[in-house]
Amino acid sequence: MRISELSATSGVALPTIKYYLREGLLHQGEQLAATRAEYDESHLRRLRLIRALLEVGRLSVASIKKVIAAVEDESLPMHQMLGTAHYALSPAVEPEPGEEWQAARDQVDGLVTELGWDIHPDAPTRDELAQTLIRMRQLGLPVDLAPYAEVARKLVSEVEMKTIPFHGPRDAAVEALVLGTVLYGKALDTLRRMAQESASAHHLA
Amino acid sequence: MRISELSATSGVALPTIKYYLREGLLHQGEQLAATRAEYDESHLRRLRLIRALLEVGRLSVASIKKVIAAVEDESLPMHQMLGTAHYALSPAVEPEPGEEWQAARDQVDGLVTELGWDIHPDAPTRDELAQTLIRMRQLGLPVDLAPYAEVARKLVSEVEMKTIPFHGPRDAAVEALVLGTVLYGKALDTLRRMAQESASAHHLA
Repeated sequence: MRISELSATSGVALPTIKYYLREGLLHQGEQLAATRAEYDESHLRRLRLIRALLEVGRLSVASIKKVIAAVEDESLPMHQMLGTAHYALSPAVEPEPGEEWQAARDQVDGLVTELGWDIHPDAPTRDELAQTLIRMRQLGLPVDLAPYAEVARKLVSEVEMKTIPFHGPRDAAVEALVLGTVLYGKALDTLRRMAQESASAHHLA
Repeated sequence: MRISELSATSGVALPTIKYYLREGLLHQGEQLAATRAEYDESHLRRLRLIRALLEVGRLSVASIKKVIAAVEDESLPMHQMLGTAHYALSPAVEPEPGEEWQAARDQVDGLVTELGWDIHPDAPTRDELAQTLIRMRQLGLPVDLAPYAEVARKLVSEVEMKTIPFHGPRDAAVEALVLGTVLYGKALDTLRRMAQESASAHHLA
């Protein structure tokens, strides 16, 4: 298809498509003549992925470039490629050197070992969870995360793993991962507050 | 205790305490002399609550005033009081009139009925969930929320309800609700992404 058709089919404005092409987020079409290039399904898939990363993942263009580079590097195994997108979704957490930080990181690392989870030693989620633990401790909250870990494990293994098309095009797998992580995460957060309201209504009725 | 001791014990700076007193967020101490007032445990509890609403709940001073008004209105039952804090934590969602919105709201309302959950008809969480559903539909994601609702219900009924001191001072119950909702929510979100990484590692190894 021509670039105008790519724009019409994807719903992405022409100047935006040209910007993605210049930035290297969208791969070039097949050059048929000096002023004519042909685009195909792979471009539509890429535009969907960019939209997911931008609008739902709320990633910066710089982060999106890294994710796209991983998608395009066919020598990178699927797990590492998905990890690039996944880690980009984690909020940046700056470790605060000191005993308190070390104790929290030790607790996170201990929990991961105990659960037998396969998490990279440098995964940003370890620092992210450590920061939440510190906040909980400072505020006097009990820090037993085991029930939360169990719920997360169950949800992921029984429901969420089935939503990722591992064996299709790489763009589609990353897109499904990002959309699912963010949007089902939002839904879970809202449903948890709804369940709290309902439980409070019953308990205090 | 004197105001200086209240500041030292709570860790809240004196000018900040005076600001809370002026804004009516913190109740006045008992006036012992023209320039001397006595503060007690209830003021320490209130300062903890304000800190929780401000730093963890990230509420505006205007929202905090509403929550504090509910805490101070002893005629308001505990469930409604907790609801004020709870609803203040929900992001503001503007319904977009139209068929798409109505269909999503109908799905949310249907889910709540099906689950038998006791959720106020005007709870902001209904609109919040409807907005996420619309986003999912637009992006072609399956919208079966039943497994998420079940996980939320289980977590709340088996773990979270026990963390709220329903029968203590009203400030303490609201504080526990806000801290727990936000911080365990954050932990759950991080643990879910960790579980995804681990499941992906196993599946794709």
